[in-house]
Amino acid sequence: MTITTAPIRNGVDTAQVYGTLDALKDQPDLARFEFRASNRWINGPHSRSTIHGFWGAGQEDASREAPFVVDASEPPVLFGHNEAPNPAEYLLHALAGCLTLTIVNVAAARKVELTEVTSTLAGVLDARGATGLDDSYRNGFERIRVAFSIKGDATPEKLQEIVERAKARSVVYDIVSNPVPVDVVTEVR
Amino acid sequence: MTITTAPIRNGVDTAQVYGTLDALKDQPDLARFEFRASNRWINGPHSRSTIHGFWGAGQEDASREAPFVVDASEPPVLFGHNEAPNPAEYLLHALAGCLTLTIVNVAAARKVELTEVTSTLAGVLDARGATGLDDSYRNGFERIRVAFSIKGDATPEKLQEIVERAKARSVVYDIVSNPVPVDVVTEVR
Repeated sequence: MTITTAPIRNGVDTAQVYGTLDALKDQPDLARFEFRASNRWINGPHSRSTIHGFWGAGQEDASREAPFVVDASEPPVLFGHNEAPNPAEYLLHALAGCLTLTIVNVAAARKVELTEVTSTLAGVLDARGATGLDDSYRNGFERIRVAFSIKGDATPEKLQEIVERAKARSVVYDIVSNPVPVDVVTEVR
Repeated sequence: MTITTAPIRNGVDTAQVYGTLDALKDQPDLARFEFRASNRWINGPHSRSTIHGFWGAGQEDASREAPFVVDASEPPVLFGHNEAPNPAEYLLHALAGCLTLTIVNVAAARKVELTEVTSTLAGVLDARGATGLDDSYRNGFERIRVAFSIKGDATPEKLQEIVERAKARSVVYDIVSNPVPVDVVTEVR
């Protein structure tokens, strides 16, 4: 009798993951991804992004019937009305989501069943930077602290190693930790 | 007769802005901000962040009665079910929202009334990096393109200059363009 391993682990279809890796080895042009967002100012610090299509795996994605719509704003102390989280908080959310899904994918590939992954993130900054009051402070976060709590059917060492591997492979961790060139062009209407 | 300038411009209370800058000059410890997010894994690449309190202007903020709750996931080609935008897309949203509100604040300070600010953002990456197939590619975006369209009661030169100033002062633009140290600690349960 053959025992077949269940291919879904941590909600990840591991057969699909290995199939994708094989396809990328054979056709490296499938690895090109372009993600997008469109934004429109509403009032004060309040704006709204629309997120829909992207290019990836050799084609324009058509899996999303409707766009995602997400707002950003500021609390009153930063001149808004709490219409939505602020951009720096969304950046922490992006980092949390990316590290978490990378942990989950790495664990699935290493045959580890996770039962819990939670994290708390904090980013500190001195507003004298962004306000232009004192250029000895940077505009953005001086540093970000991430605290993970993780539970699964593996030794503590293996679970720690999975988090380390996720750090080494996370898209957003790389973007935040290292410089990304940003080209801004402006059309005046 | 004294002509009083309307203090609300672009939805920004300019009197509040100048009051805040004066307060920061007098009490620099008010400039310290700590923003936070807590995240919990749901299934596969799907996770959920809760964003509520923050420290700023010398105290723990109490302006938000309820937390903001935002999900992140992936499309099917990246092993999810489109439960929400993916982390890289949220990062673009964070960048768009931050540049936009900084443009709006700078314009308000310079007595420019804006009527429209829209932007489209695109970030490209090669998934051979994050998958570990080829270390000559980075995990994150190779570059990000931002295209603004802006309309207001100022010369084209002045509007261009406002966007340049916003780039030089944006919190998230700095975080993305320059390295931020990220400390990750893991508790195994």
